[in-house]
Amino acid sequence: MHRILALTTLLLPAHAFAAPMRSPAEIVAQAPDTAWRSVAPEHLLIMKLADGKRIVIELAPDFAPIHVANIIRLTRSNQWDGGAITRVQDNYVVQWRVHDEAAPLPEGFVAHPPAEYERPLDGLTYVRLPYPDPYAEQSGIASGWLVGREGARIWPTQCYGVVGVGRDMPPDTGDGRELYVVNGEAPRQLDRNLAVVGRVLAGMEYLGALPRGTGALGFYTDERQNVPIVSIKLAADLPSAQRPVMQVMRIESQSFRDYLAARAARQDPFFIKPAHGVALCNVPVPAREK
Amino acid sequence: MHRILALTTLLLPAHAFAAPMRSPAEIVAQAPDTAWRSVAPEHLLIMKLADGKRIVIELAPDFAPIHVANIIRLTRSNQWDGGAITRVQDNYVVQWRVHDEAAPLPEGFVAHPPAEYERPLDGLTYVRLPYPDPYAEQSGIASGWLVGREGARIWPTQCYGVVGVGRDMPPDTGDGRELYVVNGEAPRQLDRNLAVVGRVLAGMEYLGALPRGTGALGFYTDERQNVPIVSIKLAADLPSAQRPVMQVMRIESQSFRDYLAARAARQDPFFIKPAHGVALCNVPVPAREK
Repeated sequence: MHRILALTTLLLPAHAFAAPMRSPAEIVAQAPDTAWRSVAPEHLLIMKLADGKRIVIELAPDFAPIHVANIIRLTRSNQWDGGAITRVQDNYVVQWRVHDEAAPLPEGFVAHPPAEYERPLDGLTYVRLPYPDPYAEQSGIASGWLVGREGARIWPTQCYGVVGVGRDMPPDTGDGRELYVVNGEAPRQLDRNLAVVGRVLAGMEYLGALPRGTGALGFYTDERQNVPIVSIKLAADLPSAQRPVMQVMRIESQSFRDYLAARAARQDPFFIKPAHGVALCNVPVPAREK
Repeated sequence: MHRILALTTLLLPAHAFAAPMRSPAEIVAQAPDTAWRSVAPEHLLIMKLADGKRIVIELAPDFAPIHVANIIRLTRSNQWDGGAITRVQDNYVVQWRVHDEAAPLPEGFVAHPPAEYERPLDGLTYVRLPYPDPYAEQSGIASGWLVGREGARIWPTQCYGVVGVGRDMPPDTGDGRELYVVNGEAPRQLDRNLAVVGRVLAGMEYLGALPRGTGALGFYTDERQNVPIVSIKLAADLPSAQRPVMQVMRIESQSFRDYLAARAARQDPFFIKPAHGVALCNVPVPAREK
């Protein structure tokens, strides 16, 4: 009988024993406080649109430090205030710009940053995603960011909610005064072609629902269609009562391991046939506002 | 000198010679009429929202014939007219329902359809996508639809703009009176768990831009937030002057081969580093209105 049991065990897929029965959302909701890290307010942008709509963006200084420093300088010199969202292309990107592209550049601004498109893995915590990736030798999560990997090099990937720097033709790499966020199926053909500077942690539902532009590339055809940006501020510069406390799940936590396993093989009751695999951009690192 | 040239040739990647230099959009715009097939008006739904917003959906009778027949019956008995979009979850789905879920079912309606989630490849034209897929042994395009494949079985995949049938818990499979469309990163964990009945060929920009619901799962919390459906009609039932002529690119055409190659390895001038791979849901089969 033991023998038969052992044989049955071999025939059953591993997840029948080990995998969580909770949904990813349940795992996230039940994660203990120790599974979360708070984002430094020096790396959080608070974007305000009309009607109190607020978008919170975590910056990515580990990946594009010079571009991120430029964006912080623009923020501290109030150059986003009165800016505008000028482009919304369905299933691609939402793009915005500073108030006045002819305004003097802030002190220390790097007019022609290098192409900060990839970096060595060195020094970052890394969790490999054990599924094939059509865009990279390997993919995973490095210090909380979804990345592609080739040898010892990694790059942040262009997933839903990821913020990047608009640029003209190469070798121009953009200076940070035009930013975009991905609003559809991950355009990962952009990986290593544009600098990733952050990701939306809250408020993506406002950017996702903006009217699509009818001009070429989704630009609005009339300035009156532009969506005004009331302001973009660094959380560190706000009075502490107004600072959101944003937390991102620690990738080294058991909750994150459970979340990854559940995303890749849904065992919760709605699912008949778990996939046993998942695309990188379909495992966004969970975030919450405390 | 010839020798040096030959050596240089060996060192250059193959795509430097063979691959198209045009962007995917240019390839689509320049495709000859012979590269397109017209969709039968019996398989086209025309959904009208307020303010003249029109969405055109191609049905998928090759994949879910019983569900599709149900939807056509609901359409011909005008049960969508006065229906509503009741759920918009950011980066997941937009969902709508018939006007009155207590209304008598139309003649021939199958109250409990079988789970039409996959089928044999038999009889369908198939183009393999030669890149790894995290959700399937293999993926490709079958008779114009993006599919996963395992052995001789295929299934339509849950990509941006794909329309499926809402259901309750298994084994309930839904009858077609609640439909959804994917509005974000492909939730391919739903592959083979929900019936795919179509895809949006035009007007996705309206569904994509709907305000997100603030209730659980993105449901609107107040009926007044629901987005009214003026009507859904079958193109075949409209006067011919009002019938849109929708065309989908033939997957056996040279234009489609060029499009696939260009999507997988962008050679147009904006790109510095082509990926040499692409995710299935990132090669939507081109469609146009004639």
